[in-house]
Amino acid sequence: MTEYKIEINLSSSRKQKPSFDSLEFGKNFTDHMFIVDYTRGIGWHDPRIVPYQPLTLDPACMVFHYGQTVFEGLKAYLTQEEEVLLFRPEKNMERLNRSNDRLCIPQIDEDLALSALKQLINVDREWIPNAPGTSLYIRPFVIATEPYLGVAPSGRYKFIIILSPVGAYYKEGINPVKIAVERQYVRAAIGGTGNAKTAGNYAGSLKAQEVAEKAGYSQVLWLDSKENHYIEEVGSMNIFFKINGEVVTPALNGSILEGVTRDSIIQLLKHWNVPVTERKISIDEIYQAQKDGILEEVFGTGTAAVISPVGEFFWQNEKLVVNGGKTGELSKKLYDTLTGIQLGTVPDPFGWTVKVEQQEGSKYTHNR
Amino acid sequence: MTEYKIEINLSSSRKQKPSFDSLEFGKNFTDHMFIVDYTRGIGWHDPRIVPYQPLTLDPACMVFHYGQTVFEGLKAYLTQEEEVLLFRPEKNMERLNRSNDRLCIPQIDEDLALSALKQLINVDREWIPNAPGTSLYIRPFVIATEPYLGVAPSGRYKFIIILSPVGAYYKEGINPVKIAVERQYVRAAIGGTGNAKTAGNYAGSLKAQEVAEKAGYSQVLWLDSKENHYIEEVGSMNIFFKINGEVVTPALNGSILEGVTRDSIIQLLKHWNVPVTERKISIDEIYQAQKDGILEEVFGTGTAAVISPVGEFFWQNEKLVVNGGKTGELSKKLYDTLTGIQLGTVPDPFGWTVKVEQQEGSKYTHNR
Repeated sequence: MTEYKIEINLSSSRKQKPSFDSLEFGKNFTDHMFIVDYTRGIGWHDPRIVPYQPLTLDPACMVFHYGQTVFEGLKAYLTQEEEVLLFRPEKNMERLNRSNDRLCIPQIDEDLALSALKQLINVDREWIPNAPGTSLYIRPFVIATEPYLGVAPSGRYKFIIILSPVGAYYKEGINPVKIAVERQYVRAAIGGTGNAKTAGNYAGSLKAQEVAEKAGYSQVLWLDSKENHYIEEVGSMNIFFKINGEVVTPALNGSILEGVTRDSIIQLLKHWNVPVTERKISIDEIYQAQKDGILEEVFGTGTAAVISPVGEFFWQNEKLVVNGGKTGELSKKLYDTLTGIQLGTVPDPFGWTVKVEQQEGSKYTHNR
Repeated sequence: MTEYKIEINLSSSRKQKPSFDSLEFGKNFTDHMFIVDYTRGIGWHDPRIVPYQPLTLDPACMVFHYGQTVFEGLKAYLTQEEEVLLFRPEKNMERLNRSNDRLCIPQIDEDLALSALKQLINVDREWIPNAPGTSLYIRPFVIATEPYLGVAPSGRYKFIIILSPVGAYYKEGINPVKIAVERQYVRAAIGGTGNAKTAGNYAGSLKAQEVAEKAGYSQVLWLDSKENHYIEEVGSMNIFFKINGEVVTPALNGSILEGVTRDSIIQLLKHWNVPVTERKISIDEIYQAQKDGILEEVFGTGTAAVISPVGEFFWQNEKLVVNGGKTGELSKKLYDTLTGIQLGTVPDPFGWTVKVEQQEGSKYTHNR
């Protein structure tokens, strides 16, 4: 492992912090950010923590034209003992590199990324909110910065981490949402970029979301691109169904994102001896289960919302209600357990949480 | 039609121009650029021509995370009479707005965009190269600039035009390329963003291109995502086949880009009474035609390369040669005619070229 020296340049002034009781998701950013550059022939170089600041980029930079970019999303939590916990951060960095591979972006040293993240959090430790449901959202991302209009992998990149104190993703708390099964648009195809966390997947999803919202639904349920028949994801989350006591979720097939929350839910269920299966699930099967009265719960999973119960879905001109439109018992238990583990109030038998020590990074060069 | 006032702020210094005899594609940019901003609730505002300069963007700007961006590509040509010609620019601005619609980006006034483009070209008129095969490549593009990490359409955008003097796209001139039929990766799916000119389509294509290049092929032939059987595009171009005297090209199906060059080729062929058909074309049909000795020519079409003949394709462990690996007669005639029309050396019966008058935009406010 290379020993990286992360330069730290602290901001001379500090921003006014927003009220931690009424935080909106992804709108406020802390005083500092992490940046490391990549140059072809040199590799990743000059890792540094600097005051949060605008990027100065040539208008020909490839990220603006050919979308060569990947990102991650994870959270830091402040415990009652004023400790800072990360939740399985190594999984995010592993996925970042899998996304990098799909997008022809050079691999990033995962130890550097984790060390940088911890040091950045320490620098902006006062920004971690402590009100119920709040956390510090972490956004690592890579952008292609070579100014060149040829369609080819960029010779220059920036890997950046920014931090945002956030409230709960859904302001109304863990309440069931209404979703519409999407029939016209698709999120991703086998052989495409669906299992990479890259910008284009999200840009392409906006139109369906817009149409669904106009019809009164807050998310779309994505079907596969080949047969328009098998369930893939809901909005930008993975999805689970509880049918007749058994939990099922679509198997990873190359077009579905390998969610860290998804994996944690599967592990939790197995730990509880709740039967859980990853397999192909058709929309017809879910429709029939609802008709037969055995569709007990439906919920989405993701870092931002953790668990998002589905109370109703719209399919072929029918509104199909799940669990009387209420949050199911299992959904609630999963939400409470997972957020409890993340916050350190519930035992963590899996060793998922990672403490950010105050002295983290003291071995690195500080330039104050 | 709204009368827009485009502010013009000329650069106090001028860059050294590159040698017009050895231009690389998309690496040099002129002295000025056009920008217009969009703000939700206000609309597009403050159109301006300014010195070519870096963009200053918050690291949370949505373009970096969710890829909400579209672009266009077209060219300006300097005739022997020192006139400046554009080729069907209104088609590009129409497509820009179709792409905008798919990506939930607000529509742009096409008259403003064309007027801005002409004025920008006049300001940087000395940058239009005149060596054979050269032109001024024009890159209009839109990026989402709201600093916000929620997955939703941005409330702020920038529409920018930059200019780049370019040589021929392929340095070796109009010489046949070798392509590999892609079996693992797909470019786009029905219901996806394939018919929009947006960044994510290009980011997703890099991996297949990388694999093909390592195997000695310069482009990939994309098959459809549903059956992996029907031909869609080649590299980032549309594709045509001449089989037994008839020209065929894949029909627009929602996942294929509606190329301006593609449309021009179809019109030219009809004008010449060469039979041309838009329809589904399977890779098996092309394979069989080659085996039967009736696959006469294959070529890609696009703004950058105009016509790119295919001399060989690789399919199921077989190298299949087209027209003895040489540029076909029809490919050559199409290339010569189209580039002749673009350069004003061949009659333009379609009214495709648009002259950029020297006094263009004199009705606008200049601030020199």
